[in-house]
Amino acid sequence: MKLTEIAGILNGRIEGKPDAEIEGVGKIETANKNQITFISNPLYEKYFKTTGAGAIILSENFKTNSNRKDISIIRVDDPYLSFLKILEVFQSNSNDETGIAENCFVAPGCELGENIYIGNFVSIERNSKIGSNTKIYSNCSIDSDVTIGENCIIYPNVTIYKDCEINNNVIIHSGSVIGSDGFGFARQADGSYKKIPQNGKVVIEENVEIGSNTCIDRATMGETRICRGVKLDSQIQIAHNVFIDENTVIAAQVGIAGSARIGKRCMIGGQSGIVGHITICDDVIIGASVGVSKSINKPGIYSGYRARPYKDDLKNEIAIRNINKIEEKINQLEQKLSGKK
Amino acid sequence: MKLTEIAGILNGRIEGKPDAEIEGVGKIETANKNQITFISNPLYEKYFKTTGAGAIILSENFKTNSNRKDISIIRVDDPYLSFLKILEVFQSNSNDETGIAENCFVAPGCELGENIYIGNFVSIERNSKIGSNTKIYSNCSIDSDVTIGENCIIYPNVTIYKDCEINNNVIIHSGSVIGSDGFGFARQADGSYKKIPQNGKVVIEENVEIGSNTCIDRATMGETRICRGVKLDSQIQIAHNVFIDENTVIAAQVGIAGSARIGKRCMIGGQSGIVGHITICDDVIIGASVGVSKSINKPGIYSGYRARPYKDDLKNEIAIRNINKIEEKINQLEQKLSGKK
Amino acid sequence: MKLTEIAGILNGRIEGKPDAEIEGVGKIETANKNQITFISNPLYEKYFKTTGAGAIILSENFKTNSNRKDISIIRVDDPYLSFLKILEVFQSNSNDETGIAENCFVAPGCELGENIYIGNFVSIERNSKIGSNTKIYSNCSIDSDVTIGENCIIYPNVTIYKDCEINNNVIIHSGSVIGSDGFGFARQADGSYKKIPQNGKVVIEENVEIGSNTCIDRATMGETRICRGVKLDSQIQIAHNVFIDENTVIAAQVGIAGSARIGKRCMIGGQSGIVGHITICDDVIIGASVGVSKSINKPGIYSGYRARPYKDDLKNEIAIRNINKIEEKINQLEQKLSGKK
Repeated sequence: MKLTEIAGILNGRIEGKPDAEIEGVGKIETANKNQITFISNPLYEKYFKTTGAGAIILSENFKTNSNRKDISIIRVDDPYLSFLKILEVFQSNSNDETGIAENCFVAPGCELGENIYIGNFVSIERNSKIGSNTKIYSNCSIDSDVTIGENCIIYPNVTIYKDCEINNNVIIHSGSVIGSDGFGFARQADGSYKKIPQNGKVVIEENVEIGSNTCIDRATMGETRICRGVKLDSQIQIAHNVFIDENTVIAAQVGIAGSARIGKRCMIGGQSGIVGHITICDDVIIGASVGVSKSINKPGIYSGYRARPYKDDLKNEIAIRNINKIEEKINQLEQKLSGKK
Repeated sequence: MKLTEIAGILNGRIEGKPDAEIEGVGKIETANKNQITFISNPLYEKYFKTTGAGAIILSENFKTNSNRKDISIIRVDDPYLSFLKILEVFQSNSNDETGIAENCFVAPGCELGENIYIGNFVSIERNSKIGSNTKIYSNCSIDSDVTIGENCIIYPNVTIYKDCEINNNVIIHSGSVIGSDGFGFARQADGSYKKIPQNGKVVIEENVEIGSNTCIDRATMGETRICRGVKLDSQIQIAHNVFIDENTVIAAQVGIAGSARIGKRCMIGGQSGIVGHITICDDVIIGASVGVSKSINKPGIYSGYRARPYKDDLKNEIAIRNINKIEEKINQLEQKLSGKK
Repeated sequence: MKLTEIAGILNGRIEGKPDAEIEGVGKIETANKNQITFISNPLYEKYFKTTGAGAIILSENFKTNSNRKDISIIRVDDPYLSFLKILEVFQSNSNDETGIAENCFVAPGCELGENIYIGNFVSIERNSKIGSNTKIYSNCSIDSDVTIGENCIIYPNVTIYKDCEINNNVIIHSGSVIGSDGFGFARQADGSYKKIPQNGKVVIEENVEIGSNTCIDRATMGETRICRGVKLDSQIQIAHNVFIDENTVIAAQVGIAGSARIGKRCMIGGQSGIVGHITICDDVIIGASVGVSKSINKPGIYSGYRARPYKDDLKNEIAIRNINKIEEKINQLEQKLSGKK
């Protein structure tokens, strides 16, 4: 693709060779002559002098104090957003399959939309519905009475249990499990446990992305619901009857226990844990490896082994790091006092 | 099902319409006219006035100070246990398949019990045995010389490595891996590692339930054993040669390192970690996100980033939260003392 | 196998019956007459008097102060390494399959080496290459343009996304996912998120072993790289653009965030977390459940909820455990001081 075409897409201004051929995108440290790169974060400005890229996206006010004539520049308002657009342009398109593999299984009574892809050894049980333009890759297991919307991508080896509902534009990565039984048992007099039937389901709303090997349990009764625009990373565990509101993002290895409610636009850091039956309000940011055992009713940043407001946690942490000094001071005070006796 | 039938099952007493038709169960907040619900926890008593349920299970001493004539009541001794019974009655029965799918693979030499179900694209290698009434859902991989007992349910995409032994009434949810190699390597002089062969197996005793994407490693020699009645949640990692005794329940994302021994009737909270080669006695309760690095020889509750008895941990935690006050006090004391000089 | 053969393999000296028949290996506590065992760790020396093993591997200087004539001894320099050799000799060989299952799928354009095994319901998409002597077990999904080297073992239900590169002698256990999308989203003005295309790949170098249900995300651009000799346990999450250098070992449930760089010969304990964009130098040992949020530039041992050098952490931890005593002391000091007024 010629640089002038790229500049057209970005509504940008070229300094250099409009005819330069660009074949792909690259990181500024490793890009080659046939690639385009960008600078947005000031930390990367130092690489301008050394990058091997053939072209670079820069903001209007980035000063190029160097004699490099071998690199063409596209000037734009926001180099980061512009680069994301170009990333999409060069996105590899090997996942453009359509058709239904000969060696998959689709039970009688299923409804299939138009222009779908079903890969090898996919098993879809009775009465399930797959929306148009959806792709289900190899070795997925879709149980009975499942609904999957339009434009979804279900990567290989995903399992979806019966009755679950996946809405439009959802992406689920490999190994994830939607709708397995919630962890519910009633203790018997003899110390053994009796299983509590898990009769509910899971609903995944539109525009949700779910990473690999994440598990979302079905409700005991009613539903576990992941609202529109939520983004879940890999290896997350979401227990029965959890509710996660719109546009919340959750990093890898987070665990959310039963019936917890998470608000809108929250961000939860990796490996954090949320206990059951609590509520987290909208716009809460939780750090990594944080334990949340009480409801949070005020937006803000929370951190620590036992979650508390970030500033309190930080102050506390500094004091803890100085605890040995505190001990010394006390011993000195004690000596002074006894000396005075 | 008529309310009078339900009351019969529960050995309960009806106040209201014995002929009311009940089609299912519901949570008190969301149940509709055709559903039955219950109150056990006092926190939910407030919903009695507003619930839309057609019928409700209550204890004999629950006072219904309201004029609601539109809801029928079944009086019982224990509303929670009664409701669990009714949950089972209305449990959806879509998993009642039997038969062997045409497009599965069962190697010669396997023994199959009666009335079993083997789903699409299941692969069962040579000399494995599947007990009667057991269901193995689509895309499971069962390696050679595996024994699976009677009345088991193995959900889709489960892997069981060779030689492992699953006893009767075991449920394994999707994506779980039983019998993968323990993590054992011997460091060489050049800093590289040599694999230590993992020749043992995994034994899962009766009545165990295993959540989704949980991993249980085979022993180096001998066996990793999960005893009868143990309940494991999702995304748990159990290393080689671990032993977990009867009726212990473990929440999601717990990790148990090699050769650890866990006693009977223990409860381990989510995301906790147990280091290798230690012993935890019977009847120990471990909180969530607790690190256990030493053996525990006394029943009780343990908590904290480094496990200690709950009361000690709590007292300690309160002091830590006040550490900034401690610092202030010391500074005041210092000033007083210098003032006196 | 006769004991004299085993002694030959180990270059060891027999005390006892050279003709004794040994059929396998066992742990010293549970071995029987037909098995050989060993003592390396002094903690196990007490079992010498009681072991039921038919033969035992001992060091030259182990004193056998007992009248046991029923057990034959092989004397060697290093009983542990010798035992590892014998473990390999007796390693069960049920995984010696070769051949291509009738009911797998290999797309046109794939290149297959010699002497390979491809199991049931394996799906290999177009233009992928499988090296000689490699085994791919049932229900694996290998997407297009994947390269897998020689002598690899890919256990059941593994997923490898397009373009990824697996080098020689790599072992990947069940349920692991290589090459799923990195977790990258750009926040929009309305609070929703836009997916950032993940166009890079994953490279796994030679002699790497990956446990079960571990996830390694593809790079946004460029590659996520796991260098030669790295050993990863189960349920590890490795984010996009991470680089892990040679011979580093990582225990179960560790999470490594995007673009982190881990040095050579590091050891990372279970459940630890490494934040994104930081560097850990060579020869760093990180304990279990440690949170690393800053680069580490000095080899050594690090521990704690917030990583710090082990000795500092230990000293600090002891002080924290005594914090209630510190509080008491201060109260006493305050009383003394007021008493003096």
